[in-house]
Amino acid sequence: MGFFSKDIGTLNDLFLHTMRDIYYAEKKIVKALPNMVDKATDDGLKTVFERHCDETEIHIERLEKAFQMMGAEARLVSCPAIEGILDEADEISGDIDDDMVMDAALIAAAQTVEHYEITRYGTLIAWARELGRADCAALFEETLAEERAADHTLSNLAERRINLKSAA
Amino acid sequence: MGFFSKDIGTLNDLFLHTMRDIYYAEKKIVKALPNMVDKATDDGLKTVFERHCDETEIHIERLEKAFQMMGAEARLVSCPAIEGILDEADEISGDIDDDMVMDAALIAAAQTVEHYEITRYGTLIAWARELGRADCAALFEETLAEERAADHTLSNLAERRINLKSAA
Repeated sequence: MGFFSKDIGTLNDLFLHTMRDIYYAEKKIVKALPNMVDKATDDGLKTVFERHCDETEIHIERLEKAFQMMGAEARLVSCPAIEGILDEADEISGDIDDDMVMDAALIAAAQTVEHYEITRYGTLIAWARELGRADCAALFEETLAEERAADHTLSNLAERRINLKSAA
Repeated sequence: MGFFSKDIGTLNDLFLHTMRDIYYAEKKIVKALPNMVDKATDDGLKTVFERHCDETEIHIERLEKAFQMMGAEARLVSCPAIEGILDEADEISGDIDDDMVMDAALIAAAQTVEHYEITRYGTLIAWARELGRADCAALFEETLAEERAADHTLSNLAERRINLKSAA
């Protein structure tokens, strides 16, 4: 994009572009999560990743509903940020040779993904309100609450991992 | 890394690796910020980016101090996540043909960078405590507070941008 013309002239264009970016990211995340389930040692962590995979499917459906509400095509635009975040997670997990350390790294990687989504949905909600699209804002608020809850659960699991280690 | 051997065997290794990752990211951010100053239209936004550039220099110095405290070399390891986040910001700003929309996109891009740093420093603080390194945790807490404040300022600027637009 941007080679022959500047495609984004209005906030509405930027809003749709950003929806397409996070739509691509959510589709990448739903594919990456089963791999994280396999790598995790702690059963609680595996369950959190599995549950978040189901939630991510719902986030994808909400985005498709929002595209419909906007009368816009549910296209994907490539999202270099999520590619980089997931590449980094893959790279580091390939370097780790200890189960407890692997779980610590997986939690950190998953929280990086959550924070990317938290900032993107926060921005989309603000722009939706500015554009008078309370319907889209309400949908994205549901997703944002789930992303924040997932981040919080991961922080709790990180503490549990520490406690388990101390008790070992 | 990870091709011939698995280099990360302990949480201490993971801690140092992650410090080197965010050290690389901070050095990239300090180079990207002057470009964002140039692209921004709103004077308040330009000032926030300039001030954050100075803060980022201090974050780099704190990391160098932490490497010294740990008796470890202040090496860089490539950080695909920040590369992706900055590439995405560059890509989208090349597609925008309106000053107000550009400012909105720049604020969103900067908040993505802030959230990446917030999650990384949050993780480093937790690991520093686990490793009994209250000295490093205290340094990173100062940085984390500044990253959170920058994110908050950007949210306020986004609202100001909306108010300015409504008044126009």
